[in-house]
Formats: sequence, C-alpha cells, structure tokens
Amino acid sequence: MSDFMESYSGPISRLIEEFSKLPGIGRKTAQRLAFHVINMNINEVEGLSSAILEAKKQIKYCSSCCNITDRENCDICSSKNRSDEIICVVEDPRDVAAMERTKEFRGKYHVLHGVISPMDGVGPDMIKVKELLLRLNDPSVKEVILATNPTIEGEATAMYISRLIKPLGIKVTRIAHGLPVGGDLEYADEVTISKALEGRREI
Amino acid sequence: MSDFMESYSGPISRLIEEFSKLPGIGRKTAQRLAFHVINMNINEVEGLSSAILEAKKQIKYCSSCCNITDRENCDICSSKNRSDEIICVVEDPRDVAAMERTKEFRGKYHVLHGVISPMDGVGPDMIKVKELLLRLNDPSVKEVILATNPTIEGEATAMYISRLIKPLGIKVTRIAHGLPVGGDLEYADEVTISKALEGRREI
Repeated sequence: MSDFMESYSGPISRLIEEFSKLPGIGRKTAQRLAFHVINMNINEVEGLSSAILEAKKQIKYCSSCCNITDRENCDICSSKNRSDEIICVVEDPRDVAAMERTKEFRGKYHVLHGVISPMDGVGPDMIKVKELLLRLNDPSVKEVILATNPTIEGEATAMYISRLIKPLGIKVTRIAHGLPVGGDLEYADEVTISKALEGRREI
Repeated sequence: MSDFMESYSGPISRLIEEFSKLPGIGRKTAQRLAFHVINMNINEVEGLSSAILEAKKQIKYCSSCCNITDRENCDICSSKNRSDEIICVVEDPRDVAAMERTKEFRGKYHVLHGVISPMDGVGPDMIKVKELLLRLNDPSVKEVILATNPTIEGEATAMYISRLIKPLGIKVTRIAHGLPVGGDLEYADEVTISKALEGRREI
C-alpha cells in the first residue's frame, strides 16, 4: 500500500464507480452525485435506490404494442378512446412520449425497440417486427404510419416494413420530411431541402 | 383522466422523478438515465441500487478528523506514516482528495464539512470547529494549515479559526493565494493579482 491514501473509502468509491457507468456521467459528475447521496437523508436515498430497482423489475413490454408498461397492456392500448384503425410505428418508447405530446394522434402505437442496422449487427428479427405483423391480422387496422427517425437506419427499417405490409392490402404511410418549423433554409442541409421540395403541397 | 395518456407508466415516471432531484440532472438527462436503467441487466441494476444505499448507510465521519470513512478512523488518521504535527483544515472531503493528489502533504487533515456563512444561516457551531479544537489538546500538534477555499466564506472561516487557535500557542498558516500555474496575468481578476503581489517572495 502506498503511503498516500486512496482518495475515498470503499463504499463511496464503489458508488462513484457505479455512477460513472451511466451514460453522460463522467468521473467528476459521478463524484458530485456520490457526495450528494451521502448528504441526502436516508429516506430520500432509499427512495432513489428502490426507484431504480423497481423500475427495472416492474417495467415490461405491453403484450400488444411493445411499449414499456407495468401492466399486461399499456394505457394507450387499453384505452377505449383510441382508434384501432391506425398504428403508428416508432423506434423507441421515448418516441411514443414525443408523439403524445403533440396531442394530435388518436390511434395506437407499435414500438420496435430499435432499427435494422446491419453495421451494428441488428437484423429484422432483433426488433419487434414480427409482433407488428401479428397485430395486422386484426381486420380493423386500416393504416400503418411509419414514424421511424429520418436516419439511414430509420429509412431502411421503414422501407423494409412497408414491403412486408403492402401485400396485406393495408395502407402504409411515412411521416413527412421537410424543414422543421422555425428552421432556416440557409442553414438546412441539402437532403432536408430536397425532401422538402419533393414533399411540397399545393396551398 | 385525459384521453391522451401520461407520457410514461408509474415506475419509470417515479425513477425519472428521483433522478431529476439529483444536482445537475435535468428532466431530459433523467429520462435518458431512466431508460438506460431499464435496458441494463438486472445484476447491474442491483449493483447500482445497492451501491447508493450502502454508501449512505456505511459512510460515517472519522472520529478524529471528521473525514468520511466506513471505519471508526479513516485511513489517513490510522496511518503510521503520517505526521501528527501538522493538521490541514479543509471544507470538504473532496478537498482532502484534491490535497492527496498532490502527494506533497504528509500530515493529517481536519474536515469542517462547511464554512461559516451567516447569509445561509451557518454558524461556527454547525461545522466541525469544536472537534478541531479538541484535537489541539494533543501536544504533538505544532501547526494548523487553514486550507479553506479562497472565497469570502472560506476566508472568514479561516480568520475565525485562526483567532481561536493562536492563543493556544500553535502556529497557524493559510495556504497562499496567487496566480494559478499556467494562468494568465491579463485574464486574472484584480483581487487575485493583488494577493499575488502581497504574497511575493524573493527569488
């Protein structure tokens, strides 16, 4: 053992270690968080600690749309006020939350939990495509909106899914690409501008 | 209940809530962390959850220097290689770690756990000054270095403690103020420059 001591005692080093593993949390932030934790009162600490464990233990995928939920079916799938005719396909549970914030969409969702990405070794079997196709056996489904992100992988995934669905005689649409509201033509990239031109509509 | 669903189900909302309470963690970051947690494997989640609780439960103050430790006495206080003659007084356990990284100081520490700050209602009784004075009964103590931060509160605290200690006939010193190494005179503030002038030494 060196004459100079290790900076922190065991439990605090371990906590700093654990915090540093989280995304976007560096060593300094982890240290700050760890010291914050030991200065919190014990009830607050127990609250945080159990919230972490419970979220992991209780959260599962909705048996219908694969969104995260703590029940068999998520709130949206079990709501009587939502139409079964339109399914909006998104990559991630956070995308559902983003869509819901618009308060525009009244149909249901399907969460893929990823996109097809051969570069990262993610094939169609590794995302929830099979589960989507199963839902389309329900004759009430009239339209599938593909709302994957406008990235290369998102586009490829939308293309792949549309090819699977079209033969079933269900309408398949893709969300529009174009300039974001409040955006600036001068600073937009060429691909966005050409997509915006391509998608122009009569007014 | 609104027709539009709350963004996330119970346990995940609760976890986002808990993460947002931590310092420097906003809503977006809390969300990202929460989703990371539910994608971690259960062992990792248990590791994080228990590290938080254990750090809080096991960490206590060293009975001598008030630094954080999981034993009765911290590693530095119980080391035979550290001199009892000099006590370096710091505000915070992180300051001990910062001092230790220099590998220069071979004495012991005293952690105040705060500074006197009438504005925030922190008086001398609320930091570990009494504990410091008790340690000075040990005749082997020859010098007390006041290494509180060079802030108004840090200076005031150093001044307060020095007035208490001087009558005991123990040498009291304050760490030097001046330009940081690698700093730039042009960008230094006036107070730092005048402190640097004041503390000039013959070379």
